[in-house]
Amino acid sequence: MELLKRKIIQEGRVLDGNVLKVDSFLNHQLDIELLNEIGKRFKELFKNKSVTKILTAEVSGIAIAAIAAQYFNVPVVFAKKTESKNLDKEVYEGSAYSYTKEKHYKFMVSKKYISEEDHILIIDDFLANGQSILGLKEIVDKANAHLVGVGIVIEKGFQEGGEMLRAANIDIQSLAIIDSMENNKINFR
Amino acid sequence: MELLKRKIIQEGRVLDGNVLKVDSFLNHQLDIELLNEIGKRFKELFKNKSVTKILTAEVSGIAIAAIAAQYFNVPVVFAKKTESKNLDKEVYEGSAYSYTKEKHYKFMVSKKYISEEDHILIIDDFLANGQSILGLKEIVDKANAHLVGVGIVIEKGFQEGGEMLRAANIDIQSLAIIDSMENNKINFR
Repeated sequence: MELLKRKIIQEGRVLDGNVLKVDSFLNHQLDIELLNEIGKRFKELFKNKSVTKILTAEVSGIAIAAIAAQYFNVPVVFAKKTESKNLDKEVYEGSAYSYTKEKHYKFMVSKKYISEEDHILIIDDFLANGQSILGLKEIVDKANAHLVGVGIVIEKGFQEGGEMLRAANIDIQSLAIIDSMENNKINFR
Repeated sequence: MELLKRKIIQEGRVLDGNVLKVDSFLNHQLDIELLNEIGKRFKELFKNKSVTKILTAEVSGIAIAAIAAQYFNVPVVFAKKTESKNLDKEVYEGSAYSYTKEKHYKFMVSKKYISEEDHILIIDDFLANGQSILGLKEIVDKANAHLVGVGIVIEKGFQEGGEMLRAANIDIQSLAIIDSMENNKINFR
């Protein structure tokens, strides 16, 4: 997606530890026009699939999923990472490992909001080692729902997540795949 | 807003401690059609105001603000509650006190994304004691930006936040004001 790649080149900043900072448009300040183009593109990429619900994870996936859901005419469910008294006791849990924070974390979705009739599209901002997507997929699997595919805004193609998930026959569609970002030079696939 | 009130009556659940659970449409599963009607209504309510940016807080405000921003044609900035390496060092901080969690927490917005030229509309899901809104207002004030008003989806009118903020001459627009919710019976103003 050219508009997105241009935005990444213009405004993205590469930090230590292979961090790509895109907080001017994707995960602190939100460029709503760009999010609409992203949503439209996801709809094009999954136009032949039946989708009943979009699943994402708090925090960074929420705005992307909400805007995209308008093109699919379906509700969004976002997985929570922390317990709260607003969350039901009966939840599906998925787990993931954060290499940067060196700890396991979990995703929780109330059993009320995902069922075996659901055809789930997962949407997230980044795909790197694939841990978040595996955690969300675990929830879909536990609910006996059908995983339609995964829409990713930015894939770090030099990390193993994309390859691992594609090898598992998951339909992963990434709008921008970065092959390298050494010395602040971002190269797309 | 009648559609919203109907939804609250149909799907809201009153829990102990004056908690209104609306996770089927507002803060776990998201009813995107309803969020669009909410966004349109905010635009009507603030149609005579110049707005350059919508400010909200993670997590529950994000989807509401992102959908509403489409009607204002402005970007969203969501205040972060936790430090992360994706967040700039230079931030405006606002503080708030959580009565339920009995501790202070803070909101942070990168100084890059709010300036004295900005006319800020704050949007949030709930208004109860007003602490979150005060914390967000503190950020607007520190940036010398102009606070246009505050759009709230559900105000708990039996708590003091709405009265306090209106007494401070802030333009608060709440789409549903609940006057009482004793014995599971929700009464709107």
